Amino acid sequence: MNLVLVFEEDFVSPSRVVLRGRRAEHVREVHRVSAGDDLVVGLAGGKIGIGRVLRAGDELEMEVTLDRDPPRPLDVTLVLAVPRPKVLNRVVAAVTSIGVKRIFLINAWRVEKSYWRSPRMSAENLRMQSVLGLEQARDTVLPRIETRRLFRPFVEDELPSVISGTTALVAHPYASDECPRGVPGPIALAIGPEGGFIDKEIDSLTKIGFRAVTLGDRILRVETAIATILGRLA
Amino acid sequence: MNLVLVFEEDFVSPSRVVLRGRRAEHVREVHRVSAGDDLVVGLAGGKIGIGRVLRAGDELEMEVTLDRDPPRPLDVTLVLAVPRPKVLNRVVAAVTSIGVKRIFLINAWRVEKSYWRSPRMSAENLRMQSVLGLEQARDTVLPRIETRRLFRPFVEDELPSVISGTTALVAHPYASDECPRGVPGPIALAIGPEGGFIDKEIDSLTKIGFRAVTLGDRILRVETAIATILGRLA
Repeated sequence: MNLVLVFEEDFVSPSRVVLRGRRAEHVREVHRVSAGDDLVVGLAGGKIGIGRVLRAGDELEMEVTLDRDPPRPLDVTLVLAVPRPKVLNRVVAAVTSIGVKRIFLINAWRVEKSYWRSPRMSAENLRMQSVLGLEQARDTVLPRIETRRLFRPFVEDELPSVISGTTALVAHPYASDECPRGVPGPIALAIGPEGGFIDKEIDSLTKIGFRAVTLGDRILRVETAIATILGRLA
Repeated sequence: MNLVLVFEEDFVSPSRVVLRGRRAEHVREVHRVSAGDDLVVGLAGGKIGIGRVLRAGDELEMEVTLDRDPPRPLDVTLVLAVPRPKVLNRVVAAVTSIGVKRIFLINAWRVEKSYWRSPRMSAENLRMQSVLGLEQARDTVLPRIETRRLFRPFVEDELPSVISGTTALVAHPYASDECPRGVPGPIALAIGPEGGFIDKEIDSLTKIGFRAVTLGDRILRVETAIATILGRLA
């Protein structure tokens, strides 16, 4: 936890917070702070600063001063075929830590139906994983994560306006174009499931303005692939 | 397993291999192949092709035809402060999958001594993790992984010749230079431990020709950071 993320509801007075549960426990057990110590603190959706610890037991009470802006967001909309539950948490936390602020988790032909029933797909868990990503990266702005179970209506009816004004790319192992570098301005990036989008899905995406691009013939795990592509596009 | 990596010792005749243990089990349980199926196969250090399954039980016997070159390696030497054991495996597999072929795992002030005693630091485990990275990426060429427990002698006596002719960069959160993009030619990349290299270590590295560069004020997990930087440099 490189930053303790606090929420409006944690404030007991204009500059004082009281935390319980996971955050209090982590700070106590891992950071081992005591009264008088300073921690990096950020207000969800707001500024970053310092929390001076007043007491650290079952409850963590801090006097906070928030004076810096969070790091710049990445102007990237990620359209991601639901990955297997085992990797979903890692992926959400990782892309949040990199600075992505809008994520659509979508269905695709090769997404196993059971993935949608995983408890990890709950709004609560997705939010928790993005909190972990923010705590890692010292950011405060939660990404908007939306789920879309119907590929075609999403791509045909909603996605065109989402990608309007962006450079829209879909990573596809069999594309002939190389993934561009250092793309200026907003980006929309679509990433398929294990085994990739099927041709029909690629067609639907390219029809509304996505360009299919390849990163070469290596097959990367989804979190590695996304980090590599975002590093390349940034 | 996107590729079954086979070794010279697996061959029972010039074009026939018999595998046991982990690989046979994975192919049987996960890929669920039977006689007549084809798998993507690669010879360690050699070519890639097809393995036609002859029998798949406790032993996996295949007739292999190897005719394609493995993907191009990344011309990157990675100098990595030993990460905590929990993430070591993931990092080694990930950087191998991206195509790094030379890795030095080194000591640094903020590397906990206990990390060096972890069974995960054994040559056997490091090799196993790179095999997993190759199987993921459909590559065949194992990286050379070396460990160096003494920072200064390594940096002063050995590293100068390792980085000769490369663009040598050290990722450092407090550097003023931005990490460059699309660097042509060979690269040496040094990545510090959690909390970063200390100033003295940065000085030692810059003295022999490393340039300290930053990726911005986000703190990323080591595997995310490396993938992002390699994507950006590539």
